[in-house]
Amino acid sequence: MKRSSGKPLYVDKGNYRHFMLKEIYEQPEVIGHTLGSFVDLTTGRTRLPRGASIDFSSIGRIALSACGTGYYAALVGRYYFERYARIACDLDVASEFRYRESPLDDVDLALFVSQSGETADTLASLRYAKETGLSTAAIVNVDESSIAREADHVLPTLAGPEIGVASTKAFTCQLMALAALAVRAGVDRGRIDARQELELTGVLQEAPRLVNEVLHLEEQIADLSRHMATKKHALFLGRGLSFPLALEGALKLKEISYIHAEGYAAGELKHGPIALIDDTMPVVVIAPHDRSFDKTASNVQEVAARGGEIILLTDRKGAAAGIVDDAHTIVLPDMPEILTPIVYSVPLQLLAYHTAVQMGTDVDQPRNLAKSVTVE
Amino acid sequence: MKRSSGKPLYVDKGNYRHFMLKEIYEQPEVIGHTLGSFVDLTTGRTRLPRGASIDFSSIGRIALSACGTGYYAALVGRYYFERYARIACDLDVASEFRYRESPLDDVDLALFVSQSGETADTLASLRYAKETGLSTAAIVNVDESSIAREADHVLPTLAGPEIGVASTKAFTCQLMALAALAVRAGVDRGRIDARQELELTGVLQEAPRLVNEVLHLEEQIADLSRHMATKKHALFLGRGLSFPLALEGALKLKEISYIHAEGYAAGELKHGPIALIDDTMPVVVIAPHDRSFDKTASNVQEVAARGGEIILLTDRKGAAAGIVDDAHTIVLPDMPEILTPIVYSVPLQLLAYHTAVQMGTDVDQPRNLAKSVTVE
Repeated sequence: MKRSSGKPLYVDKGNYRHFMLKEIYEQPEVIGHTLGSFVDLTTGRTRLPRGASIDFSSIGRIALSACGTGYYAALVGRYYFERYARIACDLDVASEFRYRESPLDDVDLALFVSQSGETADTLASLRYAKETGLSTAAIVNVDESSIAREADHVLPTLAGPEIGVASTKAFTCQLMALAALAVRAGVDRGRIDARQELELTGVLQEAPRLVNEVLHLEEQIADLSRHMATKKHALFLGRGLSFPLALEGALKLKEISYIHAEGYAAGELKHGPIALIDDTMPVVVIAPHDRSFDKTASNVQEVAARGGEIILLTDRKGAAAGIVDDAHTIVLPDMPEILTPIVYSVPLQLLAYHTAVQMGTDVDQPRNLAKSVTVE
Repeated sequence: MKRSSGKPLYVDKGNYRHFMLKEIYEQPEVIGHTLGSFVDLTTGRTRLPRGASIDFSSIGRIALSACGTGYYAALVGRYYFERYARIACDLDVASEFRYRESPLDDVDLALFVSQSGETADTLASLRYAKETGLSTAAIVNVDESSIAREADHVLPTLAGPEIGVASTKAFTCQLMALAALAVRAGVDRGRIDARQELELTGVLQEAPRLVNEVLHLEEQIADLSRHMATKKHALFLGRGLSFPLALEGALKLKEISYIHAEGYAAGELKHGPIALIDDTMPVVVIAPHDRSFDKTASNVQEVAARGGEIILLTDRKGAAAGIVDDAHTIVLPDMPEILTPIVYSVPLQLLAYHTAVQMGTDVDQPRNLAKSVTVE
């Protein structure tokens, strides 16, 4: 059984109580670094990191595959590629991709996402894709890993060693890499012109500042977590770009607080999970004031009408809409859509972190979990 | 707001305590009827129901979209189409499909699944697909519904009126329709020869007998449900064809017992949900002795090693493998892979039903849920 190095010997917690909190606070810096390897910050033009040379003009369909948090990053990546480059995406958890024998005839690139680069199912999926003759690329955080060695194109995230078992900075760096890559793909495919490219990379450069701003919400979120820590269940809802965030927010809480949190596409609420809503199950709603805000707002009202308690993550516009009377509202800055998955990750991480701290769990080494899953 | 007719006035519960139980018991008959409209039972040849004329030889990719239980049927459908016809499938919950603006250039058919034919998001997705110029087909249970009227090709399930809010017979009829359709598609595409076609339709004709056999497990499952009714959480796991069943099994339990049940691809267990495992969270594992059995077995052992309680749905071969010492094992007959989603649905339905009865919930009209979701 191989393990990713992660170089734990050279890393300490500094003044932070846990690695996880330290890594949450490193995000403004490391997502900036990651962006810098996909965008020339002097010209604002996208580029691929050293060694990678993917021409997206000939790529009509990408098969994305990953596990756990990397899978949720890939789910955001699908929205990015579809929206900014009009590239269709297949998406699978790696443990399913390998065995599904999906026809790959019209797939032009298989793209894998892994922090450790050693995730067993993702590595096996990469090998399977190579055997079928597909061109492969991997977004990985550990340079000297098996996945980095074996993929045709390596797209490194520069998150630095991640020690906390629950991924935080690696996830937001994956999102940043995917966003920049989607813009690059849009340029290659003539979907994004030079002016739009500059505009979008300019927006992406706002991410470190916005993440930093959102870190100032820590105290408010810590207060809220004292309440969350009394719960046994939680539901996380989002639409569009916020749907994968709902899954990731639930996963974070699950991993370190052992609260049974479940993420759902908000549109599916009435097809089942609404039956669970009562005062014991808080509902965390990720709802920036974007194109799907009104639909999500109506889901929020349904939850409220059934006595559900709501934690609403939104922006100033969304908060001003006043969709329910007594939600716990966390107000983030207004921002362009492409940034919301990155920036909204932070309050979700802080909520999970402080809830776990309240509950006294072993935040950096939660029970039953390993940092990288190197067996199937 | 339109409602599906469902003709409730003409339907009674007969000797059954609830419509849901009656509908579970109708399955051998109605899945046979449904099969009969996709297969000429005198020759064993597949056909399309009256009025539909889809030539799958020119279809390389299908976009599937649905909500709730219909979405889980579509997820099984993807495996069927990929495995038996080598047709690639895109798959979305309808509420996401509409807004995702996915590039559909290489999609040849948009296929929708809905019991009522009035599901708002599915109907809107159908209209969106038509606007983009796509050929559309719909698997629907209510003939005179909006979706049936508006789709280019209607593929009726013959489940009869379904009154229980938690779908049972409509789901297994959807699975049967999808299985037969995938075989038909394989024939059209030259992937299945005449001999294989006969073999597969012969297998499908075994479904009513096997479902009937599995209904005899009711007493054992009712016993088990007395225990399940004391729980607040449950995890459902499966791989491949059984992964959608894990989602559907969890949904059934959630809908009518209000137990927080969550379905997961078994390969994702170690990427998060295993942190939840303790003696308060039973784990229901759907594991026929198929190509992914060994992988799932190792997940079962991990759950057992962490003190998790296991309810194992498997066949004689799987039970004989003796993968853990003290699982509650429900032994189903051995059967070809294509049938497992249909037949394994039944113990999952019975488990949800009896658990809800134990808990005294309103089985046919669970709180907060409507039979068909006709608003977004």
